[in-house]
Amino acid sequence: MLEHLFSPNKIAVIGASRQVGAVGHDIVKNLIEGGFAGEIIPVNPAGGTLLGLPVYTSLKEYKESLDMAIIAVNKDLIIDVVQDALSKRCTTIVAIGAGFKESGDEGAMLEQEVLTLCKRSGARLLGPNCLGFINTELKINASFAGPMPRKGGISIFSQSGALATAMLDQAEQRGLGVSKLISVGNKADITENDLLSYFAADSSTKVVAGYLENIVNGNNFLKHATHISRKKPVILLKSGTSEAGQKSATSHTGAFTGTDTAYGAAFKRAGIVRADNFDDLFDCTMAFSNQPLPKGNRVLIISNAGGTGTIAADAVEHTGFKVAEPPSNKTNSLRGRKPIYSDIESPVYVLGDAPAALYVEAISTAQEDSNVDAIVLVLTPAAMTEAKAVLLGIAEVLDGSKPLLCCLMGGGAYVPPMHELVDAGLAIFPTPERAVAAFSAMYNHASWRSLPPRIVTRFRVNRRRAGRIIQRSQASGVRRLGEVRAKKILDAYGFNVPEGYLVDSADEAVEYARRIGFPVALKVVSPDIVHKTDMGGVCLNLTNAQQVQDGYDLMKLRIKQQLPNARIQGVYVEKMADPGLEVIIGMNRDPQFGPMLMFGLGGIFVEVMKDVTFHLAPITQDEAIQMLKATRSYQIMEGRRGNKAVDIVAIANGLQRISQLATDYPQIVELDINPFIVGEVGSDPIVADACITLEIPEETL
Amino acid sequence: MLEHLFSPNKIAVIGASRQVGAVGHDIVKNLIEGGFAGEIIPVNPAGGTLLGLPVYTSLKEYKESLDMAIIAVNKDLIIDVVQDALSKRCTTIVAIGAGFKESGDEGAMLEQEVLTLCKRSGARLLGPNCLGFINTELKINASFAGPMPRKGGISIFSQSGALATAMLDQAEQRGLGVSKLISVGNKADITENDLLSYFAADSSTKVVAGYLENIVNGNNFLKHATHISRKKPVILLKSGTSEAGQKSATSHTGAFTGTDTAYGAAFKRAGIVRADNFDDLFDCTMAFSNQPLPKGNRVLIISNAGGTGTIAADAVEHTGFKVAEPPSNKTNSLRGRKPIYSDIESPVYVLGDAPAALYVEAISTAQEDSNVDAIVLVLTPAAMTEAKAVLLGIAEVLDGSKPLLCCLMGGGAYVPPMHELVDAGLAIFPTPERAVAAFSAMYNHASWRSLPPRIVTRFRVNRRRAGRIIQRSQASGVRRLGEVRAKKILDAYGFNVPEGYLVDSADEAVEYARRIGFPVALKVVSPDIVHKTDMGGVCLNLTNAQQVQDGYDLMKLRIKQQLPNARIQGVYVEKMADPGLEVIIGMNRDPQFGPMLMFGLGGIFVEVMKDVTFHLAPITQDEAIQMLKATRSYQIMEGRRGNKAVDIVAIANGLQRISQLATDYPQIVELDINPFIVGEVGSDPIVADACITLEIPEETL
Repeated sequence: MLEHLFSPNKIAVIGASRQVGAVGHDIVKNLIEGGFAGEIIPVNPAGGTLLGLPVYTSLKEYKESLDMAIIAVNKDLIIDVVQDALSKRCTTIVAIGAGFKESGDEGAMLEQEVLTLCKRSGARLLGPNCLGFINTELKINASFAGPMPRKGGISIFSQSGALATAMLDQAEQRGLGVSKLISVGNKADITENDLLSYFAADSSTKVVAGYLENIVNGNNFLKHATHISRKKPVILLKSGTSEAGQKSATSHTGAFTGTDTAYGAAFKRAGIVRADNFDDLFDCTMAFSNQPLPKGNRVLIISNAGGTGTIAADAVEHTGFKVAEPPSNKTNSLRGRKPIYSDIESPVYVLGDAPAALYVEAISTAQEDSNVDAIVLVLTPAAMTEAKAVLLGIAEVLDGSKPLLCCLMGGGAYVPPMHELVDAGLAIFPTPERAVAAFSAMYNHASWRSLPPRIVTRFRVNRRRAGRIIQRSQASGVRRLGEVRAKKILDAYGFNVPEGYLVDSADEAVEYARRIGFPVALKVVSPDIVHKTDMGGVCLNLTNAQQVQDGYDLMKLRIKQQLPNARIQGVYVEKMADPGLEVIIGMNRDPQFGPMLMFGLGGIFVEVMKDVTFHLAPITQDEAIQMLKATRSYQIMEGRRGNKAVDIVAIANGLQRISQLATDYPQIVELDINPFIVGEVGSDPIVADACITLEIPEETL
Repeated sequence: MLEHLFSPNKIAVIGASRQVGAVGHDIVKNLIEGGFAGEIIPVNPAGGTLLGLPVYTSLKEYKESLDMAIIAVNKDLIIDVVQDALSKRCTTIVAIGAGFKESGDEGAMLEQEVLTLCKRSGARLLGPNCLGFINTELKINASFAGPMPRKGGISIFSQSGALATAMLDQAEQRGLGVSKLISVGNKADITENDLLSYFAADSSTKVVAGYLENIVNGNNFLKHATHISRKKPVILLKSGTSEAGQKSATSHTGAFTGTDTAYGAAFKRAGIVRADNFDDLFDCTMAFSNQPLPKGNRVLIISNAGGTGTIAADAVEHTGFKVAEPPSNKTNSLRGRKPIYSDIESPVYVLGDAPAALYVEAISTAQEDSNVDAIVLVLTPAAMTEAKAVLLGIAEVLDGSKPLLCCLMGGGAYVPPMHELVDAGLAIFPTPERAVAAFSAMYNHASWRSLPPRIVTRFRVNRRRAGRIIQRSQASGVRRLGEVRAKKILDAYGFNVPEGYLVDSADEAVEYARRIGFPVALKVVSPDIVHKTDMGGVCLNLTNAQQVQDGYDLMKLRIKQQLPNARIQGVYVEKMADPGLEVIIGMNRDPQFGPMLMFGLGGIFVEVMKDVTFHLAPITQDEAIQMLKATRSYQIMEGRRGNKAVDIVAIANGLQRISQLATDYPQIVELDINPFIVGEVGSDPIVADACITLEIPEETL
């Protein structure tokens, strides 16, 4: 879809300027200096020449057709200019200037107008509010992001122009060659989804590094991101990760799911490598650009000094990986060298001022050793270490079987320029800690790639019955379904819900309690009471008729005292659930990524320890079990620490049924089962309390 | 104490060599090229000249006295050479070569011999196994760490030679000038403690940056580190931080206290700024080197681009600080600029391509604004931003009232060399995330500086009674004091211990139970049973004589079945404690830093959630309360989330009494009170179970 963007032959620059430093000047200059082989058509009412090219006073003056128009004029002129360009059969409009959606409603309308014009002509629109793009293959620098970068396998995109420039600069500093750079700006038309789809098929792109502030279409993103991630790594820095958004949420689940949680879950699902910060973005890009994915987590550390080796070993162990044991005692270069064991009892091979050949042999040996999955080499600028000979020698023997991460802690004068090292096949990091963090990203990405195919179970449920309850509630404008209705829906989806009846008097309560069998619970049912327990609206464990009678009367009295105006729909008499482990299952719908499931052990584990995990629906059995295992409190469910083991699979099934319900009914905005009482293996967990929040169509409100 | 080290007039280099790259050559070369104004005396049996200096074939040939001998000879020759040097009245020996303690027992003996010789002559010994030292003030580069660094206020020390070189390199790259550099090597004599003491008084040292693998004397370190930290910041990178050491521990407290926990507690107590990694070491050094400490946590963000500003805002909020609100609406440069609110609702001032004067005005205004405690300025290399004019202009108006952290994300060509910016008073960081991490270190250090004086309460206790129990146990070789003896000691230290008696028969148990009053608990007492509950050795809540009788008999039966050979000293009949919140108070003695206190909420909070905090004893009331507040479960103690508030001060008192006990009796190696049952405010917590481990003097074993 984006071939036209990246391979224009005739490019008009409208707003071309003779003023050095002006955007319309720099783009023309960059196109010329970058070596663009096609035709450049500068346009400016002043006419004359610019950098040796004749300047057209208007696009109308130019009589041929065009491929691309780069528009660097004031926003007030843009509509006319775009119309002119489209009349020349442009396939791409690159709108550089600002003053559109980012500046308010008026700008947004103008942006929409430009987009409509483009769509009508079948042209694509890059921007507005962007820096343009670069394609090193065709020597097109249609940007004011900086000079033409060195050609290479990294493709970069950025929602922020400033970050695009910083990323270009960083790629240069790190010695990483660039294939494409695209500043997507306001993303009126061309978005990250188009780019992911294009890069997946683009053979010159080996790794994608991107900066995003939001995502335009969550479902498309998941689709394209997953597709490309199976072929090549995509490393994204996403800003706006603080969770101020969670303040407004009302349910347990909602309170934990800020936007960032959803992004995290989506990136994880799609195999996106998420950078923690700007340094990490390029550390990961470096690692993925020329190193193979690891097959395990045992990292051999080779260093020219003990101290730096220890720092590397610390980093490996802190990240949860293993420092590899000594290579097996065949004839090899490390055998003679006694590994230095650090305080933490991890072996670090310190070769010190050994000749380069020994370093090369050590790497060769480690490459062949089946007990080593990756190698971290740390060199400090000791004059005795022949850094250049070591590095270039090592590069020669690399067989691509396992990742080698080289840390050069200083020593600029001793080593070749960064791009030579990178081109030779080495990944270079400034510190051991950052090399290990990049290894961790590679390891996780390799794990994602090896996941089995996702098969989502469809349970047999009474979908229509649930649908009827939802529809009726929506029709009558009920947004929040209390316990009674929520349980009916869950019952329809195969959940075990205790037998219960809505009653209107103490006598009726006693009658139904007898029918159900003691012990029972009483719970007030009112659309005005969210926290029933706090209002005295819950009585548990009533074991005889007298207790039911007393409980009922007391409840009515308390509610009357505390909330005299509450609308009471009745009291729910329900069979007490057998005691068990209380967990919470929840769902919260993210505006971008849809239903997100939450799981946590009940009570303080969720409320105080915030020990909860998330996953996007639909969820598989494997993923549901992984959600449980990812909580710290999993060991309690497993039956360690003096607790009885509970039915893990039954909880996982509950999560999958909620996943199915949330997928079937997009109207469900939030859902909490709290507590979901789980017993021993083989028992059926019980929904002890639940609530569901619906989206109410506008016309009903 | 170290004046002689840093200001020698006559330096002999023994092992001076003509071979370029040899240590003995490079040190002479570095001394000459560094501009050393005193006399250099190269010594080598070959004689001749070296770099224009006459070479003595032996130190004996040199007839005058010396200040310093730098020894770069093979270890086999060292004793003779050191003797020669000392006979010339050297005040400092710098032993460069390796082959000493780091290489095994034989080397350690040789090292000790050298040290003894030095001590006998009253000379100080630097090294062995080090790179030497640098003093830029006196133009002495007595090292092979690299060329003479630029003069400045940073003093560097390192236990690893390689790290010393890497740190020197990093200081140069970051534009930071150096005052002293010392490679301490094996630290046979001169250690971090000497250096901290020296740097505290050294007026040319403004900030200390160091790398350590261990600490030689914990108490001295605490003393010197605290002393210097009140005057100037010390930033330390400590390696060997993994916690493999904890595996061998047996108590709850022990299981959580690896060596690293103790280092962490010690650094915190002494006001040391602990660097998380090598990057962080220099980020913090940069920040502290020329910025004032902040007085609050509100950070104003000014950027030339929205994206980078958002990244900075994310970092500020994630670190727990506040993004400062708009400067008050006086006439100022920001008023006209609408702050851009990011997704996270934090204002970021995007000045974009504004002229340098506006940036300068913005900084001026923010400096005067009482709602701003610190400023983060983020510049990306957009050609339009006059980076140089902005930076140098800002530097002119800085009044030192609040920290300004500048992030330059690339843009090498646009900005002056790093050292010019640093000398102008700017702190420069590569990314917003790292600038904010450095701000966080400054904020924490400022908090440490403003702590009130530490006043440790001494409680009135029966110290002699506790001492008698400890002494008797030690005398009889009892290492582990079970519940009964541990409680007696705790009783002597003012803890509330339930009334209890050791009995030998079921009848006796019933008799004492009646005397104590029901309900009671029975607990088996045996040196062979650590986990009483697991062996059926505990019966709780016995409410009448029959239950006591049954419990006693059953307990005896079970123990006989499970541990037929266990030595049973009796059964302890004890008053049941009233129910309350169960917490754990513990103490574990670190080999370096002495008694370390642990606190956590009981049961799963400690075992599953690992929600525990630590503090070195002796502890103050404030510090004890801070320990409680630092746990996530503090809100449970506070009485939120449906729990009753417990007596926080009573727990803090418990911690202080344990602190006193551990300080009074160094023989106590480990101590656990688990559970310590705490009730409402005003109630006295109860020691429900406890154990104490003693050190047993060698002769007793």
